[in-house]
Amino acid sequence: MAKSKFEYVRNFETDDTCLRNCYIVVRLDGRNFHKFAEQHTFTKSAHSVMEELEDIVIAYGQSDEFSFVFKRTSTWFKRRASKLMTHVASQFSSSYVFYWKDYFGEQPLLYPPGFDGRVVLYPSNRNLRDYLSWRQADCHVNNLYNTVFWTLVQKGGLTTVQAEERLKGTLAADKNEILFTEFDINYNKEAALHRKGTTLIWEKVNETIVKRLKLPNEEEKEVPVTRSRRKVQSYHTDIIGDQFWEEHSDILEADNC
Amino acid sequence: MAKSKFEYVRNFETDDTCLRNCYIVVRLDGRNFHKFAEQHTFTKSAHSVMEELEDIVIAYGQSDEFSFVFKRTSTWFKRRASKLMTHVASQFSSSYVFYWKDYFGEQPLLYPPGFDGRVVLYPSNRNLRDYLSWRQADCHVNNLYNTVFWTLVQKGGLTTVQAEERLKGTLAADKNEILFTEFDINYNKEAALHRKGTTLIWEKVNETIVKRLKLPNEEEKEVPVTRSRRKVQSYHTDIIGDQFWEEHSDILEADNC
Amino acid sequence: MAKSKFEYVRNFETDDTCLRNCYIVVRLDGRNFHKFAEQHTFTKSAHSVMEELEDIVIAYGQSDEFSFVFKRTSTWFKRRASKLMTHVASQFSSSYVFYWKDYFGEQPLLYPPGFDGRVVLYPSNRNLRDYLSWRQADCHVNNLYNTVFWTLVQKGGLTTVQAEERLKGTLAADKNEILFTEFDINYNKEAALHRKGTTLIWEKVNETIVKRLKLPNEEEKEVPVTRSRRKVQSYHTDIIGDQFWEEHSDILEADNC
Amino acid sequence: MAKSKFEYVRNFETDDTCLRNCYIVVRLDGRNFHKFAEQHTFTKSAHSVMEELEDIVIAYGQSDEFSFVFKRTSTWFKRRASKLMTHVASQFSSSYVFYWKDYFGEQPLLYPPGFDGRVVLYPSNRNLRDYLSWRQADCHVNNLYNTVFWTLVQKGGLTTVQAEERLKGTLAADKNEILFTEFDINYNKEAALHRKGTTLIWEKVNETIVKRLKLPNEEEKEVPVTRSRRKVQSYHTDIIGDQFWEEHSDILEADNC
Repeated sequence: MAKSKFEYVRNFETDDTCLRNCYIVVRLDGRNFHKFAEQHTFTKSAHSVMEELEDIVIAYGQSDEFSFVFKRTSTWFKRRASKLMTHVASQFSSSYVFYWKDYFGEQPLLYPPGFDGRVVLYPSNRNLRDYLSWRQADCHVNNLYNTVFWTLVQKGGLTTVQAEERLKGTLAADKNEILFTEFDINYNKEAALHRKGTTLIWEKVNETIVKRLKLPNEEEKEVPVTRSRRKVQSYHTDIIGDQFWEEHSDILEADNC
Repeated sequence: MAKSKFEYVRNFETDDTCLRNCYIVVRLDGRNFHKFAEQHTFTKSAHSVMEELEDIVIAYGQSDEFSFVFKRTSTWFKRRASKLMTHVASQFSSSYVFYWKDYFGEQPLLYPPGFDGRVVLYPSNRNLRDYLSWRQADCHVNNLYNTVFWTLVQKGGLTTVQAEERLKGTLAADKNEILFTEFDINYNKEAALHRKGTTLIWEKVNETIVKRLKLPNEEEKEVPVTRSRRKVQSYHTDIIGDQFWEEHSDILEADNC
Repeated sequence: MAKSKFEYVRNFETDDTCLRNCYIVVRLDGRNFHKFAEQHTFTKSAHSVMEELEDIVIAYGQSDEFSFVFKRTSTWFKRRASKLMTHVASQFSSSYVFYWKDYFGEQPLLYPPGFDGRVVLYPSNRNLRDYLSWRQADCHVNNLYNTVFWTLVQKGGLTTVQAEERLKGTLAADKNEILFTEFDINYNKEAALHRKGTTLIWEKVNETIVKRLKLPNEEEKEVPVTRSRRKVQSYHTDIIGDQFWEEHSDILEADNC
Repeated sequence: MAKSKFEYVRNFETDDTCLRNCYIVVRLDGRNFHKFAEQHTFTKSAHSVMEELEDIVIAYGQSDEFSFVFKRTSTWFKRRASKLMTHVASQFSSSYVFYWKDYFGEQPLLYPPGFDGRVVLYPSNRNLRDYLSWRQADCHVNNLYNTVFWTLVQKGGLTTVQAEERLKGTLAADKNEILFTEFDINYNKEAALHRKGTTLIWEKVNETIVKRLKLPNEEEKEVPVTRSRRKVQSYHTDIIGDQFWEEHSDILEADNC
């Protein structure tokens, strides 16, 4: 049982270190999920991943997918792609089951859910923002379609086949028009969570806590102490335009490094 | 919000298809686990992974790790390494939390556990068997050490520092001797689960079920029906020698294909 | 000019080690070559590559391409794919120009030729033989077509457009028939170099040289000495069937290693 | 000989597309070259490579190595690393033999030379400039050492062992001082070719040619015509500082693309 006799098999492992100075995106996709179902558990799980992997500077989720962006200079897991993506997939999945009861209480999760993942590298801030814009535009396109589709079925009395037929070839403007003129729905007032997805970032938050202090020659007393710490915050807002990035200019590192 | 404007970012994805005609091993390693703790949940989670991914021909687990072997000719996920390893990591992790209560009941899982994974390819049966032998030899070496170490501490009254000192430089034979002469323990009679780890394979199992049948000109009656189906079976046995492989000759495909 | 300040750029290199226990094939393809033109210089250049890289166990060339097969256990250049393929491409290219004059004398080479290359791995003997069979079948298909095509043009008086039209949809048997009945040509008697391409292997060759020896109590005299050494030999023969491989059973290593 | 039966072997090829939006550097290194020997043939060969591959925006060579930088947005060979590096290695090598006689006339090249190559990606202008600085700093360090070493041997009468001993532990300043005080040599006045290596870039060059024109109602006459075209130009100058890059601001593309 000499271990050393077999150890040559180690040399069959390959190195999959991610190119330096690139953003590392890990995207997870749900397998056979009911879309739009469990956004709160999703977001909570993403929180859990970010809090454990501090080098994630931004995460974006919509429908049954979530993307996690590691900073350019991250050296977590020595930038090994396999370690990064499996760890994110694992942590997200176990968190999903772990936190399920916080949102669904006694309603049981029927089976252990599965996600798959991938790693993609982006060399510039422009590429990374375009990636995130691509995912948010995807969110918009799908959510607008689904909103009109189910409105036509549930309020308009169409069958799903008829609704599909009705929407064939329509543009975004047409869909907004159907919602507005036929159902008196202003799409832009629908829940931002569904229209914009969820963006998680780290932010400095001031917290005031009360401490009991005993100064010399004084009675012990309670003193409010304000301290600043980094917390994961979530937004349901546009990340395609410049405003978000100007307001959170510390997310991205400069290109010329 | 034209989605197409951003879609170029798709081209940054790389192809990580696994070389054909090689066994694909996905190994998961627990992160910050208490070793030797939760073998039943581990095994149950590995079962769950195998049952969902039928192309896994054998899985081997010990301590806080589990290796899953996809057959040479598998085309699951088009043999894309990232998909294979993240899916296994995800399914295993969510199963671990999902099945926890089956083994621990009210004793809560304190936090969502994390695993990381990797993919390794093996071109020949010899290489694959050597890989599995390497893992089982590792199981043996570690378990023997731990058995003696904790016996010295718990029964021998040594401090952990003293036990460590005592074992420095000892060979396997020395450790067996300590157990036998000082504590009357025959290591080979310790639990096979810990000495050999857990091997999962697919086996044909005959099941007899009772069906109600109504044949022409007869009364309806109950008839026992035997059918054969594939089930995941677990073993705690030696997989280094030839015997196991001779008895389960259908696990490995021929080399010359 | 502190060199060390810049040395971090080294870390951007990636590891491209070839999977162990697989045959490594480097194939070169000529860029903008006149097909079938310079077979002798081609073969000579391939000889030159093999003699420098002894781990190449077989090479096969046809038309403007040449494939070089490194043995499974080769550790040349630490199995780094980039080193292996660039070195072969470089050595072949410089040899092509270097040896040109040996075959073409005063007829000048008009410009420095270019080749591109790739690396492909094959895990089993069957896969490797199928690769070589694929290339030789390609040789056959193309050479048969070209032989009939140019015979129709040069002896049959057809234009190239007419010849192309005539051959559209014909099978191998049809083409053989055209050659035989219309032009009295037996394709199987055409030059094997063109029909089968060129296969290079290492073979033990006995050489007899004459040495002058002086034995005790004898006059110095000339003695024939036979010694055996490995030399690169070339064949124009079928490598799809089993015969070649049975006659040269030392080329391939066993699969189960 | 059905070709299709074997064609499955194609699927063993892997995709090695270079990450988009990164500079692609192909570096060639001479194998067993006498250092500092054949700079003119080297430079001519590099010229030949650049003129064929217009997407190379800058090339830098020193000693027996040459680096070629493809622009970020290049789609040559679909950015396939293997094709890019083998083609450069091949073209450089055949050019080296092809142009040898232009510089060495009747003095024969003794054997076909070999180079090996690699591909490295750089995501930002800063990374790329640091790579080129690294190579030029390497040139400086080696050339200064060699200059002092051979001066000590050839003019100072030391053996090579003594010269090596003398230089052990000396800094650049020490070496400059030895040259200046002992041999009256100002290192900065030595040939820039050796001190700085060779940088090749594309530049617009105005050329005046004479054309014979016949305008209506006029006699035919010769007219000078100036036209601008891109040519490969070589420099032996510092590329570590900013000046070179400010004077040639069109070499690098902006980072934020």
